[in-house]
Amino acid sequence: MRVALLVLLLSSLVAPVATGSEPSLSRQTASCISCHELITPGIVSDWRRSRHSSVTLNVAMKTPVLERRISIKEAPQEKLDLVVGCAECHTLLPEEHEDTFQHNGFDVHVIVTPEDCATCHPLEKGQYEKNLMSNAYANLNDNPIYRSLVDEINGLKTFEKGRIAGKKPDARTDSESCFYCHGTDVKVEGAVTKETELGDMVFPVLSGWPNDGVGRLNPDGSKGSCASCHARHAFSIEMARKPYTCSECHKGPDVPAYSVYMVSKHGNIYSSRGESWDFFSVPWIVGDDFGAPTCATCHISLVATESEVVAERTHQMNDRSGWRIFGLVYAHPSPISANTTIVKNKAGLPLPTELTGEPADGFLIDGEEQEKRKDRMKRICLSCHASGWVEEHYARLENTIATTNEMTLAATKILLRAWEKGAAKGLPQGQSIFDETIEKMWIEQWLFYANSTRFSSAMTGADYGAFANGRWYMTRNLEEMNDWVESRLR
Amino acid sequence: MRVALLVLLLSSLVAPVATGSEPSLSRQTASCISCHELITPGIVSDWRRSRHSSVTLNVAMKTPVLERRISIKEAPQEKLDLVVGCAECHTLLPEEHEDTFQHNGFDVHVIVTPEDCATCHPLEKGQYEKNLMSNAYANLNDNPIYRSLVDEINGLKTFEKGRIAGKKPDARTDSESCFYCHGTDVKVEGAVTKETELGDMVFPVLSGWPNDGVGRLNPDGSKGSCASCHARHAFSIEMARKPYTCSECHKGPDVPAYSVYMVSKHGNIYSSRGESWDFFSVPWIVGDDFGAPTCATCHISLVATESEVVAERTHQMNDRSGWRIFGLVYAHPSPISANTTIVKNKAGLPLPTELTGEPADGFLIDGEEQEKRKDRMKRICLSCHASGWVEEHYARLENTIATTNEMTLAATKILLRAWEKGAAKGLPQGQSIFDETIEKMWIEQWLFYANSTRFSSAMTGADYGAFANGRWYMTRNLEEMNDWVESRLR
Amino acid sequence: MRVALLVLLLSSLVAPVATGSEPSLSRQTASCISCHELITPGIVSDWRRSRHSSVTLNVAMKTPVLERRISIKEAPQEKLDLVVGCAECHTLLPEEHEDTFQHNGFDVHVIVTPEDCATCHPLEKGQYEKNLMSNAYANLNDNPIYRSLVDEINGLKTFEKGRIAGKKPDARTDSESCFYCHGTDVKVEGAVTKETELGDMVFPVLSGWPNDGVGRLNPDGSKGSCASCHARHAFSIEMARKPYTCSECHKGPDVPAYSVYMVSKHGNIYSSRGESWDFFSVPWIVGDDFGAPTCATCHISLVATESEVVAERTHQMNDRSGWRIFGLVYAHPSPISANTTIVKNKAGLPLPTELTGEPADGFLIDGEEQEKRKDRMKRICLSCHASGWVEEHYARLENTIATTNEMTLAATKILLRAWEKGAAKGLPQGQSIFDETIEKMWIEQWLFYANSTRFSSAMTGADYGAFANGRWYMTRNLEEMNDWVESRLR
Repeated sequence: MRVALLVLLLSSLVAPVATGSEPSLSRQTASCISCHELITPGIVSDWRRSRHSSVTLNVAMKTPVLERRISIKEAPQEKLDLVVGCAECHTLLPEEHEDTFQHNGFDVHVIVTPEDCATCHPLEKGQYEKNLMSNAYANLNDNPIYRSLVDEINGLKTFEKGRIAGKKPDARTDSESCFYCHGTDVKVEGAVTKETELGDMVFPVLSGWPNDGVGRLNPDGSKGSCASCHARHAFSIEMARKPYTCSECHKGPDVPAYSVYMVSKHGNIYSSRGESWDFFSVPWIVGDDFGAPTCATCHISLVATESEVVAERTHQMNDRSGWRIFGLVYAHPSPISANTTIVKNKAGLPLPTELTGEPADGFLIDGEEQEKRKDRMKRICLSCHASGWVEEHYARLENTIATTNEMTLAATKILLRAWEKGAAKGLPQGQSIFDETIEKMWIEQWLFYANSTRFSSAMTGADYGAFANGRWYMTRNLEEMNDWVESRLR
Repeated sequence: MRVALLVLLLSSLVAPVATGSEPSLSRQTASCISCHELITPGIVSDWRRSRHSSVTLNVAMKTPVLERRISIKEAPQEKLDLVVGCAECHTLLPEEHEDTFQHNGFDVHVIVTPEDCATCHPLEKGQYEKNLMSNAYANLNDNPIYRSLVDEINGLKTFEKGRIAGKKPDARTDSESCFYCHGTDVKVEGAVTKETELGDMVFPVLSGWPNDGVGRLNPDGSKGSCASCHARHAFSIEMARKPYTCSECHKGPDVPAYSVYMVSKHGNIYSSRGESWDFFSVPWIVGDDFGAPTCATCHISLVATESEVVAERTHQMNDRSGWRIFGLVYAHPSPISANTTIVKNKAGLPLPTELTGEPADGFLIDGEEQEKRKDRMKRICLSCHASGWVEEHYARLENTIATTNEMTLAATKILLRAWEKGAAKGLPQGQSIFDETIEKMWIEQWLFYANSTRFSSAMTGADYGAFANGRWYMTRNLEEMNDWVESRLR
Repeated sequence: MRVALLVLLLSSLVAPVATGSEPSLSRQTASCISCHELITPGIVSDWRRSRHSSVTLNVAMKTPVLERRISIKEAPQEKLDLVVGCAECHTLLPEEHEDTFQHNGFDVHVIVTPEDCATCHPLEKGQYEKNLMSNAYANLNDNPIYRSLVDEINGLKTFEKGRIAGKKPDARTDSESCFYCHGTDVKVEGAVTKETELGDMVFPVLSGWPNDGVGRLNPDGSKGSCASCHARHAFSIEMARKPYTCSECHKGPDVPAYSVYMVSKHGNIYSSRGESWDFFSVPWIVGDDFGAPTCATCHISLVATESEVVAERTHQMNDRSGWRIFGLVYAHPSPISANTTIVKNKAGLPLPTELTGEPADGFLIDGEEQEKRKDRMKRICLSCHASGWVEEHYARLENTIATTNEMTLAATKILLRAWEKGAAKGLPQGQSIFDETIEKMWIEQWLFYANSTRFSSAMTGADYGAFANGRWYMTRNLEEMNDWVESRLR
C-alpha cells in the first residue's frame, strides 16, 4: 500500500482539485482524503454520508431561515462554494490549537473543538456555553466535595493489616470512568515520531485523549465536544435526535433517563414506529416528521407544527427545565450559571442546597424563571395533549420532587445521627463523607433511588418510580440504613 | 392563530362535509379536525395514519371473517359509510359518561373507554373483562394485603426522634407509581373554565387523570383502557404486537417478561430480523408474516398457518396459561375469576395460596383446565418445534415452578422464625408484614428472584434464571436473611 | 390435514423432484418439506429465506475466494447442483449419530452438529474447536471448583431446624440455568412412539434436549452448536453479526458485554444508523458495509477495506484477545488450550491464577503471543482511529486489568481474614468457598463488578465502569465485606 499512498499524496499536492465527482472539495481536503481513504476508510466513509460532504456554504446559507442548520449570515468568498471537508475543520485557526502539527505540508490539529464548529454554528456554540454540560469537567473536578466522591469511587483500595486503605485514582482510570462522560482535560505533552506507510512522521502526544466528554477541556482553551452527540465524522442530526446518543451517559442507576424513556409511552411509540419517521428534517414537524418525542424533541430541537414554531432550537437544554431533578443531594431549581463551582450554600459547602435540602439562594433561578422554562417545555406537550393532561402531569412531577427530597432528608437525618452518635465518622469529625458503608447507602438514596423516581415521574416510566430503583428502594434503604446504625450502637 | 381557528370552526359547523380527500368523514369529526389539526396536530396525524381513518364500517364488515378486526355483524345504516374519526368515539353514549361536556356544540367526553370501543369490538371487550388486567385496579387497591404493600412503598417516610415513621401515600404518588400500570380511579371532580384561542371554554376536572393503566376505572363505570396497548390515536395492531408495548409495565425486577424475552432466542430473532416482518396482517401467519413469536403471538393474537388456525384471538390472555407464574407469594394455578379480591386462603388471608404455598382451593383453576390452557399455547410452539422439544420445555417450566416455590418457602420459614423469636414483628404481633428489612428481603425472594427465574424458564432467558436476578439471588438472599435474623438473636 | 399430509408424503416418495420453482432440491429434502411445510411451517419458512435454500454447492464454490462462505474445495459430483436442504444435514453420516431414527423411509437425526456443518465449513469447525466456547460444557461441569459454584447456585435450598440446607441441583434446573449457555450433555435415552397425523411414529428420547449452548455435547461425540449464533433454520450471517445474538448469553451482571456495547459510541452508532448497513456482505467492508463495529466485527468476521484484508475470519475468537478479561477469579492471559479443565495453579487448584492473582504459568499464553493477538484487533481499530488513539485505549485497558485485579485481591484478603479468624469457613476448614454471605460478596467482587469494569474499559461503556455495576460497587462491596467480618468478630 505504501507506494500507492505516496503516489496519491504527491499527486494530490500538486494537482488541481478533480472537478468530476467532488467539485466542491478544497484542494487541502482532497489531499487528506487521498491518503485517509486508504488508511482510515471508516471515517472517510462516514463523512461522505454526511451533510458536510455534499452541501456548500453557499447552498446552506440560502436555505430558508427556519430550515437552516448554520447560524452565520456571511462567509469568506473563497469558501462559499466549498463543502466542509477534513481540512475545513482540522486546519482552522492553527495558532489557537496547541495540538497543531505539521502533517504533509498542512498545519493540522487533532481535536476539532466547539470553537472550530462556531465558524459556521456560532449560535449553537453560544447556547452550549450556557449548558451545564459544557462545564461538566470543572463542575465535577474542581468542586472539592464532588471530587472527593470521584476519588472514593475510582481510587484503588488495598486491604492491609485488617484495614481498607485508599489511594488517589490514576489519570487513566478517571479518564474512562467519570470523565468519559464529563470530559477530560486534554493537554499536549510533547511529540512523538512514528513510522508510517509514508515514512517517519511526527505527531503530538496528548494526555486525556481519546475523549468525547461533553465538558472536555480542549487544547485551544475551549470547552466541550460537539462530537459527544453529533458523532464523528457524520455529525448527524439524526443520531443526535435518536435516544441512543443520550444513552451513552444517561442510562445507568445514577441518571436513568434513557432507561425510563424507553419504557414510557413515548419510548414505546418511538421503538414501535420510529423507523418510519424523518430524523433529518429541519424544522422538526410534530405529526409529520415524528409521532412521539425523543430526548432531543423536548430538550433541544427546533420543533414546529405546519403553522408555527413550538420551540426554538437550543443547546443550553436547561432553558426548558425549571428544576434540576438530578439530586445533588436534593433536586433544586436550575443553577443560574453553567459554572457550578461558584455555588456555596449557607454552611459554606459547594452544594446547590443545604445538607438538609434548602436551596442555596442566589445561585439558583427563581420561581418566575422556573415557570418560564417549564412553559417552554409545556408548549411541546400541548402539541399532542390537552392542557388538563399537561397540568396534572406537571403537578405530579412537582409533588414527586417534594416527596423524593423528603425521602432524601430522612436518609440524611439517619446519617447525621450516625455521625453524631459516633457510629460513623463524617462532617463533624472532619472526615470523608463518602467512605463508609452508611455514607454509601446515603448516596444511593439520592443518586440512585430519588433520581430514578424523579426521572420516572418526569417521563412516566412507571417501574423506575416503583420497583426498578424507585420508591421500593428508597423505603428499603431507609430501613437498612437504620439497621446499620442500630447494630453499631447496640 | 386564533382568527384562523375561529374561521375554520365556524365554517365546519355550517358547511357540508368536504367530499374531496376525506369522503367518509362524519360532519362532527370534520369539525373536530378543523381545529385540532392546528391545536394538537400530533394526535390528528396519528389518527390519519391509523386504519380507523381510512376504512369504513361497511368495508370492515365485508372483510373475510378471519381477516376481520371488528366483531359486530351489523351497524347502523347511517354509519356504514363512515370511517372512525374523533366524534365517532368521543361523542358516543354521552349520557353514560360523567365526563361529558359541551364543546363547540357537541357532547364530548374526554375518556374513551372499552365500553365505547365495544361498539365495534364487543367480542374483544368481553374477552378483556375476563382478563386479570381489567381488574388490576381493584385487585391491588381493594386487597388489604396488597394495599398495605402499596402504602409501604409509596408512603412518605420521615426520620424523627431516632425512628422511621410512615404516612399514607398521596394520590399523585400512587397515580404515577403502582397505578400507572394498574390504572387509576378516574373521577369527575367539577368543571373549570379555561381561556383558549377560541375564547373561554369549560372543561371537566378529572382526578386520577391522565392515566392509561390496564384496569383504569372510567367515568362511565367501565374498566380498563384499550389504549394501554393500542396507543392513542393510531390504535395500531402493529404496536400491540411489538414487545415494546408490554415493556411499559413488564420489564422491571418484579415482572421482567420483556427483559427475559429480549435475551431469549425468540427475542434475538425478533431484534435481528423483525424489521422485515408484517405486523399488520390478520390473521397472523407463522413463517409468512413473522419468523419468531413476540409477546402477542403467544398470549393474544389470532395465529394461523396457510392451512389452519393455530390459536384464536383472545384478550383474556391467561386462557393460554395454566399457571400464574407471577408469585403472590407463590406461583399458582390461574385464578378462576378476573376479580381476585374474592380470593381467601384457609388462613383467611386474601391470597391465592397459604403463606406456606398450598393453593387456595376453589378460587383457582383445576388441573384439567390448566392442561387445556397449556395445550392452547403448545399448539403455537408446535408451529416451529417438534413435540419432544415442546414437552421438555414445559417439563422444565413445571420443575422450575416447583423449585422456585420451594425457595420461596425457605424464605418464608426464615421470616416465620424471625417473627416467632421476636427478631421482627409481623403476623403474630398483628403488625405490618412488609415494613422491616427482613420482610423486604422476603418480598424480594418471591417478587424479584423467584419471578425472574420463572419468567426465564418460561421463555428461555438464561441469565434471568441465573445471575440476572435469578437463582444466584434466591440463594444469596436466603443466606442474608438468615444472617439478619441470627445477628438479631445473638 | 391428515389426509393431505399422507397424499403429499406418498407422492413425494415416488415422484421425481419437481423442477419448477425449486430445481436444485434433493428428492429427500423435497419429501421433508412436503410434510413439514404443513406441520412446522415456521422453520421451513426460515430456511426458504436462507442462503442455504437458494445457492447450490457449485455456485458457492465458484464464488471468488474472499467472498466465499464455505471452506471446501471439492464436493461430491452428485451434490454439486443441490442446495442445502433438510436432508442434506439431517441425514448426514447416520451411523455417527446416536440420535438417528427411521423417519418415513429416511435415516434422520435430530441434532445437526458442527461435525455435520463441517461437510461444507471444515475450516470454521476447526477454528471453533480452538474456541473456549466449544469446551464450555466441560470447562464448567468438570472443573470441581466451578461445578461447586453451579451446585451452590442451582441447588434447592430448604430451611429446617433453624438452618439452611442445600441439595444438588436437578438436571432440568441445570439445563435452563448455567448450561443453557454453556451447553448440555445430550444423550439418547431410548425411543418413544407418538401418535401423529400420519399414524404412529417412533422418535428418539433425548436427555439434555432442547439446548443450543455453545459447548453442547452432541450424540455424535462432537461439541458445540453452530445454531447458537446462526439460529435455525436461517443460519444467517446477518443474525450472527448483529449484537442481539451475543446478548443471549453476554448481557447479565456476570458478563455484561452486550449492555456495555450498547452504551458505547460504537453501539450508539449501530443503534442509530445500523438499519442502512449491509450485514450479509462477505468480506465485510469497513465504511462501505458498516459504519461502526458490532461484536462480530472485532471478534470473528472477515473484515476488509476496499484495498486489503484487515482481519481474517476466525471462529476461535480469543485469537484477537490477549487477555481473558472475564475474571476467574482474576483477569488473566488467554488460556493456551480451549480445554481449561487441565489448568492447575501452584496451590493445586483448577484455576488460571493463584487465589492471590498470580497467573498459572504454563497454561496461559505468554506476553509475545498476547501482543500478537492484540495486534490483530488493533488493525481493526486502525481502520477508523489514529494510532495514538488506539494505543492509549489499550493502555487504559491494561491499567484497568491491573487495578480491577488489585480490587479483587483486596476482597480476597478480606475473605482470607474471615476464614483465618473463623468468621466464616472455607478453604482452611475444607468447606465450600461459595456458600456463605461473605463468600458470595467476594464472588460478586470479581464476577460482577470487576468484570463489568473491564468490559466497560474494553468497549468504552462508561457507566458500567462507574455506577452500573462498576467501580462504585467494587469500592462499596469492600466496605460491606469488611463490615460483615467485623460484625462477626465483635
